[in-house]
Amino acid sequence: MNDSETLKLHSYWRSSAAYRVRIALNLKGLAYETVPVHLVQDGGRQHTPEYRALNPQGLVPTLVHGARVYRQSLAIIEYLDETWPTPPLLPARARDRARVRALAQTVACDIHPLNNLRVLQFLEREWSVPQAERELWIRHWVSEGLAAIETLLQDHPSTGSFCDGEAPGLADCCLVPQVFNAQRFGVDLAPYPTVARVNAACLALPEFDAARPENQPDAPASQ
Amino acid sequence: MNDSETLKLHSYWRSSAAYRVRIALNLKGLAYETVPVHLVQDGGRQHTPEYRALNPQGLVPTLVHGARVYRQSLAIIEYLDETWPTPPLLPARARDRARVRALAQTVACDIHPLNNLRVLQFLEREWSVPQAERELWIRHWVSEGLAAIETLLQDHPSTGSFCDGEAPGLADCCLVPQVFNAQRFGVDLAPYPTVARVNAACLALPEFDAARPENQPDAPASQ
Repeated sequence: MNDSETLKLHSYWRSSAAYRVRIALNLKGLAYETVPVHLVQDGGRQHTPEYRALNPQGLVPTLVHGARVYRQSLAIIEYLDETWPTPPLLPARARDRARVRALAQTVACDIHPLNNLRVLQFLEREWSVPQAERELWIRHWVSEGLAAIETLLQDHPSTGSFCDGEAPGLADCCLVPQVFNAQRFGVDLAPYPTVARVNAACLALPEFDAARPENQPDAPASQ
Repeated sequence: MNDSETLKLHSYWRSSAAYRVRIALNLKGLAYETVPVHLVQDGGRQHTPEYRALNPQGLVPTLVHGARVYRQSLAIIEYLDETWPTPPLLPARARDRARVRALAQTVACDIHPLNNLRVLQFLEREWSVPQAERELWIRHWVSEGLAAIETLLQDHPSTGSFCDGEAPGLADCCLVPQVFNAQRFGVDLAPYPTVARVNAACLALPEFDAARPENQPDAPASQ
């Protein structure tokens, strides 16, 4: 890539949506620059006019590739996969691609949106929902979603060491950050043995390890 | 298609995720059978063991194509697009595809998941959030999301009569059901003129009209 094609990822170390894209960038072997967006300091730097100009929702991640701006983690990962096809993050057959996308979307559409920072801030600010109740809310949606993913993984012959066969892909890019979030909020993984097994297989790979929240340049020294 | 390739859509007339898939099926000119799943009667028929066997999350839609089962509305639409490529629901270039997917995901990942039935039921059942407050919650997330979509549509040269150019596609399949939901809960569309214009252009097409909630076989006679 020449300089005009530099990849810049606007990211926050603990954002699970940014974590997905970091994994995909690493699996593709793409060098990128991290531009930290602190989601809490100064009332949340994702709300500055400068960042909102890149991302009108005020959400991370945003990927800037040369002069162009890409938003929404799953759209970004598919963009990476279409632009740099090797190694593929989606299988070849339409029916297998649909399965992988459905697993990814179970995380990205049905678990994570309920538990991200802006929603938890709404519950606290608008309704004064106590922290213990907010954590119950988080665990409820995480448990329900992971139970469905566990069933879909257990019941399907395509499941291998990873969500689809023997190489990590789009679904794994979503599952690992979701498991990170689950553990952060004290969800017991024992009822989801396949999820736990796939998560461990992923984290043993350097591409996943380098993407971990604690390995980001903007991670605090002590957490 | 021979009989083994019959398309059956497990749907609920008012589900906006099912509505997305109905539009896509119609745009592809595919005949399909509607299998109604009543989300309210009998405590919600999406929770029966028979339906959960098809869809472990107990959510609609589910598409059955021959012997195979497809879940998650966006994954289903991309499956339809890959299996029946004409007319395309995504543009040809990776960067344009990413834009369309990001618009679709703004609806499917950031607006709709917060406002669907299971979440509203949780708020009522677990926290006794009064109806007026639940409707405020809905309008908050809808307004925030539509404002971002309005900005993304207004600011981009790819926007045409539809979200991308002069033919409807994946983003329109998501936008129109979200606008239906917005209007159902009294969100004023005046601040989102481009959204309103695209929505009107879509609904003027027979493929969108046939997919409307009120035109479904399971819609009640008087609503």
